[in-house]
Amino acid sequence: MTVEEKLEAMGLTLPTPPQPIAAYLPCLRMGKLILLSGQLPLRDGRLVATGPVTSTEAGQEAARQCLLNALAIIKQDLGGDWSQLARIVRLVVYVHGSDGYADQAQVANGASELLVELFGEAGRHVRSAVGVNGLPMNASVELELFAEVTG
Amino acid sequence: MTVEEKLEAMGLTLPTPPQPIAAYLPCLRMGKLILLSGQLPLRDGRLVATGPVTSTEAGQEAARQCLLNALAIIKQDLGGDWSQLARIVRLVVYVHGSDGYADQAQVANGASELLVELFGEAGRHVRSAVGVNGLPMNASVELELFAEVTG
Amino acid sequence: MTVEEKLEAMGLTLPTPPQPIAAYLPCLRMGKLILLSGQLPLRDGRLVATGPVTSTEAGQEAARQCLLNALAIIKQDLGGDWSQLARIVRLVVYVHGSDGYADQAQVANGASELLVELFGEAGRHVRSAVGVNGLPMNASVELELFAEVTG
Repeated sequence: MTVEEKLEAMGLTLPTPPQPIAAYLPCLRMGKLILLSGQLPLRDGRLVATGPVTSTEAGQEAARQCLLNALAIIKQDLGGDWSQLARIVRLVVYVHGSDGYADQAQVANGASELLVELFGEAGRHVRSAVGVNGLPMNASVELELFAEVTG
Repeated sequence: MTVEEKLEAMGLTLPTPPQPIAAYLPCLRMGKLILLSGQLPLRDGRLVATGPVTSTEAGQEAARQCLLNALAIIKQDLGGDWSQLARIVRLVVYVHGSDGYADQAQVANGASELLVELFGEAGRHVRSAVGVNGLPMNASVELELFAEVTG
Repeated sequence: MTVEEKLEAMGLTLPTPPQPIAAYLPCLRMGKLILLSGQLPLRDGRLVATGPVTSTEAGQEAARQCLLNALAIIKQDLGGDWSQLARIVRLVVYVHGSDGYADQAQVANGASELLVELFGEAGRHVRSAVGVNGLPMNASVELELFAEVTG
C-alpha cells in the first residue's frame, strides 16, 4: 500500500502543505537532510486543538495532525515521490500543558507510532518530548521534524 | 551595502561576541555547519528584556538582540569575512511568556525578518518558535541558530 | 584513566542503557553524527528528581544522571570502544521549574562540566538551556545530546 492508501485506511488524509504563519521556510535541504519548521495541528486552516492538552487522546490527535502537515511538506519537497524518503530522523514534540503535566511521551506517541505504521523501520526515529506553557496561536502541540532523503 | 552598513542604517550594531555564561562553547563547526549555543538578549553585559514578554514589540527587540549576539559570534568564527557565510539554516526561538501566551511567532519574526533584510535569500531559514515559563538569567527570549559556511 | 575509572573516582557509574519509554529509538547515526533521544534522570528505573527543580544542586545531580544515561547509550552504540567517540557536539537541557525560575544554566553545568572532566577538549560543546513547566514522567530535567564519531 502507498502512504496515501495507508492513511486512507486509517481515516486520515494528507492536507495541502500549510504555509508558514510568519517569515520563514516550510522546509530546507542540507545535504541529505530535510529540516522542517515547527508544525502546528492545523487542519483546513484551523487548529484542531488549542490551549493546554486536556486528555492524552486529544493530545495524540493534535500530534498526528502536526505530523500530517509535516508529511505534506515533505511530499511536496520530494515532488510527490515517497521513494526518495530514506527515513525519518528526529522529532521534537512540544506539548502545551498545565504546570506539572507529565504525559508528553504518550502525546508524542500519536506522531511516533503513526510514523512506524506508515514507513516501518524507516519511520523509527530519535525524539525529545517536552512540556511548555504556551505555543504559537495557542496551539496544543508543535512538532519539529528532521528527515533524510536517498541518493 | 555590507552587513554592518545595513545594520547601521537600521540603528543597530554588532556587539562584542558574548562569552558563554557557563561551561560551553559559543559555537562549533561540524563540516559546513556552524552550531551556536543559545543566545540571550544581552547588550553591554545586561539583558534588554527580562521576565515574561510584555508586548510583541518588546519581544521582537529582544529576539533581535539575541540575533545580533549570534551574528557577532558567527562573524568572529568567520574571521570577519561574511562571504564565507553560505546561509542561515535554522532557528529555535524560545519565548518566555505567561501561561497561554500565544504570540511566539510574531516575537520570533524580530529575528527572522532581520535575517532576510541582512542576507536576502541566504537569510531564509526553518524555524520553531515555542513558549517557555523561564529562561537563564530570567531572560525574555533565547535563540538557537544553525548556519552553513561556503567551501 | 578510562572514562569508567574517571567516573568511579567521582563516585559515579554508567547505568545500563535505558530503554525508550515510548515508540522511538535510543539513538540514531547519520554520517558521523550520533543523535540521541531526550534522556531523563532515571537511575535503576526510577527518576532521581521529579517536579520543579528545588535547588541548583538537585538540578545538577539530575542533569548529571541524564548525561550518564546518554553516555551509556553512546557506549553501547560504539560497541564499548570510547576511542570511536570524536567529541560531544551539542546539548539541549530542559529544566522543569516554577514560573520565572532562572538558574537553568547552572543546572545544565551539572552535565557540561562532567563532559569536560571526562573527555577534556573533546567534551566541549554548544548548548541551549531552557526552562519548562513540565516533562515526561514529571522529571525535573531532560537532556538531548548530539555527538560525533571518528572515522
